[in-house]
Amino acid sequence: MSLPATLARLDRDFDQSLERLFALLRYPSIGADSAFDKQTRACAEHLVEDLKSMGFEASARETGGHPCVVGHRRRPGKPHVLFYGHYDVQPVDPLELWETPPFEPRIAEIEPGRKAIVARGACDDKGQVMTFLEACRAMIAETGDLPISLSVMIEGEEESSFANLPVFLQANAEEFKADICLVCDTGMWDRQVPQITSSLRGILFEEVIVKAANRDLHSGSYGGTAQNPIHILSRVIAALHDANGRIAVPNFYDGVHETGANRKAAWDALGLTEEDFLGPIGLKYAIGEKDRSLIEKMQSRPTCDCNGIWGGYTGEGSKTVIASEARAKVSFRLVHDQDPAEIQKNFRAYVRSLIPADCSVDFVGKEGNRAVQVREDSPELAKASAALKDEWGHEPVILGTGGSIPIVGEFKKVLGLDALMIGFGQEDDRVHSPNEKYDLDSFRKGQRSWARIITALGK
Amino acid sequence: MSLPATLARLDRDFDQSLERLFALLRYPSIGADSAFDKQTRACAEHLVEDLKSMGFEASARETGGHPCVVGHRRRPGKPHVLFYGHYDVQPVDPLELWETPPFEPRIAEIEPGRKAIVARGACDDKGQVMTFLEACRAMIAETGDLPISLSVMIEGEEESSFANLPVFLQANAEEFKADICLVCDTGMWDRQVPQITSSLRGILFEEVIVKAANRDLHSGSYGGTAQNPIHILSRVIAALHDANGRIAVPNFYDGVHETGANRKAAWDALGLTEEDFLGPIGLKYAIGEKDRSLIEKMQSRPTCDCNGIWGGYTGEGSKTVIASEARAKVSFRLVHDQDPAEIQKNFRAYVRSLIPADCSVDFVGKEGNRAVQVREDSPELAKASAALKDEWGHEPVILGTGGSIPIVGEFKKVLGLDALMIGFGQEDDRVHSPNEKYDLDSFRKGQRSWARIITALGK
Repeated sequence: MSLPATLARLDRDFDQSLERLFALLRYPSIGADSAFDKQTRACAEHLVEDLKSMGFEASARETGGHPCVVGHRRRPGKPHVLFYGHYDVQPVDPLELWETPPFEPRIAEIEPGRKAIVARGACDDKGQVMTFLEACRAMIAETGDLPISLSVMIEGEEESSFANLPVFLQANAEEFKADICLVCDTGMWDRQVPQITSSLRGILFEEVIVKAANRDLHSGSYGGTAQNPIHILSRVIAALHDANGRIAVPNFYDGVHETGANRKAAWDALGLTEEDFLGPIGLKYAIGEKDRSLIEKMQSRPTCDCNGIWGGYTGEGSKTVIASEARAKVSFRLVHDQDPAEIQKNFRAYVRSLIPADCSVDFVGKEGNRAVQVREDSPELAKASAALKDEWGHEPVILGTGGSIPIVGEFKKVLGLDALMIGFGQEDDRVHSPNEKYDLDSFRKGQRSWARIITALGK
Repeated sequence: MSLPATLARLDRDFDQSLERLFALLRYPSIGADSAFDKQTRACAEHLVEDLKSMGFEASARETGGHPCVVGHRRRPGKPHVLFYGHYDVQPVDPLELWETPPFEPRIAEIEPGRKAIVARGACDDKGQVMTFLEACRAMIAETGDLPISLSVMIEGEEESSFANLPVFLQANAEEFKADICLVCDTGMWDRQVPQITSSLRGILFEEVIVKAANRDLHSGSYGGTAQNPIHILSRVIAALHDANGRIAVPNFYDGVHETGANRKAAWDALGLTEEDFLGPIGLKYAIGEKDRSLIEKMQSRPTCDCNGIWGGYTGEGSKTVIASEARAKVSFRLVHDQDPAEIQKNFRAYVRSLIPADCSVDFVGKEGNRAVQVREDSPELAKASAALKDEWGHEPVILGTGGSIPIVGEFKKVLGLDALMIGFGQEDDRVHSPNEKYDLDSFRKGQRSWARIITALGK
């Protein structure tokens, strides 16, 4: 009886929940850019106050980097759930492509009858975090309590660093031990069909710095005789893939497993086409390994992308300069049992082999993360699955995602916790891009979904 | 009798001439960057006032871009000389590599007993322009006049544009007709041996813009399936040269001539080594065509360099983005009879052939300029040669330069004028780089050289 009342309250209070999300979205909590440190911390403090107002014992905990918001609302004897999300957001450049300022949230009608919240973080991850917290708020208001013992961890370095949270987790392992962990940072299969995410790719970042002369040179004097580091770096980036779309770093595919025929058939049954997937972003043809299907590439193959490149003169007009150095940021998405430490070693050796005399190369990198596979046969997954079907009218798709949420591997390693990854993002949310958005329907029905799932988990 | 007095005055007044150069160097006249338009114009006005103070009829003439400073001090019946220089300077980035602010000139002792003026434009071309003007000022002060009829043209778009000055020249052809043109924007063979520059390379600039998806993408969602324009652009830059160091644009070498054995022998006699040439910039090995000598590459071979590249996330930390576009600036230095229009056409077709489905490419380019060869047997060159020997004690080297001064071709085409290219820059002047400098000896003995040359030309 309490669930219908909670759902009714969520519908009734939707406008206020939107206002609360807008308040959170107004903080420019760009964790990767130290210029925003103050606002990032203010965002954490805002969340602490919000959790306290819902009866959580909450604080912003120091981690060595941006603080981690932690809240507990314990009910001894009830199933203990650890909720994970993040309040930091991606940088906003190129700023000129935003239709409105990224930290001034607004509602836009993105197609007839379809409305969305537009702002940096609207989906990733502030919108998703508030989707969950609003469900809790309504349950507490309606019934006086939650049917579970709940711990909340909302971190501030998901988009930028992976140095501090594992240490924090290790140091406070007892505090966060739970029965299951909920992660709300993933997407739906489409606008009608929910999804429970069963695997995440790992990730490895490297910055490559190629240097040649000890200063910038005039191309009239030194062109054609002195090494140009932009040319060398371009050759390195061009050599990351072979002509068949495979990643050319030696031994890169060690630990990648072939997918069984049954699973491949299940993927094929989803009927995903290149047109469906790439059409909305203005493309037609999937790149990558020539002998793999689109869904296979997305579900079970590793990737390598240059995320940024720069060197020489990039201003207005022309400048006849040969730069003394050039830089690129490269990232790898890993699957199955690929070992990021091995790949880092092999990548660096491969790049060094491409650097000619008179040039040198430096690397700036972080420790990477392995891919994660969660249990697909847990009772919690079955309960969440049924709850999602009640809300959406469709069985959720159980599928891996191409993105990486490094902390999920740590929850398993440090706390022995399995994750239940459920989120309400859509493919066209422009996550990490200008004009990021989150469908009003995702926010509304997502709240209702969480109320159902929490209720089911409490049983 | 008047020459020794002028030379003595130049020595006596050297400190004041330095102050006048410093005043000119304090203007941040970065012609390529419209943010500096006001200061660029102020620099032109400063020169106009200076010319007027020396008895020139002078003004800043509109060209459609930055003004061109024009001054005349006519003496009918005397040989008419047109002096050309430029007051605009290169951009200063990367600013953090400057030891002191680029527009706060100072004297530095760069090695024991060797002093230099350090500032953007110290050599290119404000220092060189003032070297000539100070010689004129001293002659006028000492003798009341110059032994030649002199027109001065100091433009403001040498480093950025080649659109306006040819039009201005064409429109005012009668005004600038002269017997010879002096261009003071080149260098010496070394610190002891002067040089008269006999050829200039042509130049062609192209900006290449590769586009893929209609927005920036999240590499977790689209990595390995959507085109990454940085990868494509890297392949384009990597494909500009073949494995033997030759430029791979089809038909690029049309119009490049082989050098005769006599001239090659003369070059070899100069004894230039890779160690001498590349050592000071921290390099050891000349790149480029494997079967050509260093001096041949510098004197008679065309070049291609990427002067800048950028795309994706280039800020602090990491961002898992696939950019929607990537850009590069490419320039070619041309020799002999290479046709920039043909090369532009072939370059664009070649780049287009490297662009896969789902990517597009745009070009931003300007009309290029052909290489220039000047007469080596003119009486003016003989006079200048003798005057330089009197000052330096060494016969000047008559040699081509790798740089480009597009206007020299226009002087020939529009006015039928041959150029006498004499300058006092040194190989280590960091022209176009941070900490640009001009040796005090270049400024001092350059002034004395010009006094001797002007005297000789007046005879």
